[in-house]
Amino acid sequence: MESCSAPRARGEGQAQEPDGRQRGGPRQALTHVPALTELHGIPRAYLAKRLQALSRAGIVQATAGQVGGHALTRPAASVTMLEVVQAIDGAEPAYRCTEIRQRGPLAVPAEQCGRPCAIARAMAEAQEAWYRALGAVSIADLAAGIDSDSDGTAMADVHRWLAASHR
Amino acid sequence: MESCSAPRARGEGQAQEPDGRQRGGPRQALTHVPALTELHGIPRAYLAKRLQALSRAGIVQATAGQVGGHALTRPAASVTMLEVVQAIDGAEPAYRCTEIRQRGPLAVPAEQCGRPCAIARAMAEAQEAWYRALGAVSIADLAAGIDSDSDGTAMADVHRWLAASHR
Repeated sequence: MESCSAPRARGEGQAQEPDGRQRGGPRQALTHVPALTELHGIPRAYLAKRLQALSRAGIVQATAGQVGGHALTRPAASVTMLEVVQAIDGAEPAYRCTEIRQRGPLAVPAEQCGRPCAIARAMAEAQEAWYRALGAVSIADLAAGIDSDSDGTAMADVHRWLAASHR
Repeated sequence: MESCSAPRARGEGQAQEPDGRQRGGPRQALTHVPALTELHGIPRAYLAKRLQALSRAGIVQATAGQVGGHALTRPAASVTMLEVVQAIDGAEPAYRCTEIRQRGPLAVPAEQCGRPCAIARAMAEAQEAWYRALGAVSIADLAAGIDSDSDGTAMADVHRWLAASHR
């Protein structure tokens, strides 16, 4: 997820043409995998796999060619952490009900199990609370948080470093 | 977890002597693993492993001998789902920060990383929301929910079946 905040920081909130040109704006470099790999000190295969997942989810757009790279498809403020986490880790809830109530000598007939059981309901409510918390934080919020942890220079430093890495 | 609601249903909230006798009350049978295994239609090894985890966490008390079995060590209303889930699945948070901010050409010095990063903070808040949700539901609540899903007879049926299984 950390590796997703850098492309976000570039051309934040600006829709881009497939060639990376800001729609109605000047051409702007996209963020390249090699640059992000170096910036975050992570294996290229690791980053590429996450970017592919984000691309499949429609969160980032990958463009090929000389101006190829990755960019957000939507404003960073409209992309939630929940979308990113689910794009990368999947949207399967942590708890899976096996309908234990339908087993044994006091088994409840399946036709009477239309509603999840009390345990499954409580686990689902906890999962929803987790979804709500991550759904309330945008990638723009993360970038702001990263800046608030520095003296407000962190994202600008990232922008400069990425721009220099494209020269 | 389902398998934990049955012992809970017996002698709910009543402290017990090691031999299963209600403190200051009549002798009462404990819930036996074979009975719970049959009641829930689950493998004995599966149930035994969960009961061992609950015993290690001090949530249930296992007693040996002719009157041996398992019983809650505290009132069901004071045992939360969070305690049970963490006793069985462990208390390790789902997200583990690898301090990616300390890597690469813009690495933040470790001494400046005393506070978790924005991503780790957001993930921790989501984890806390999950903890709060499960911490707000007691085992007694689950038993009440199981009853509310039936015509109020489910737990009584469990009591009767378990009592008969001990004869």
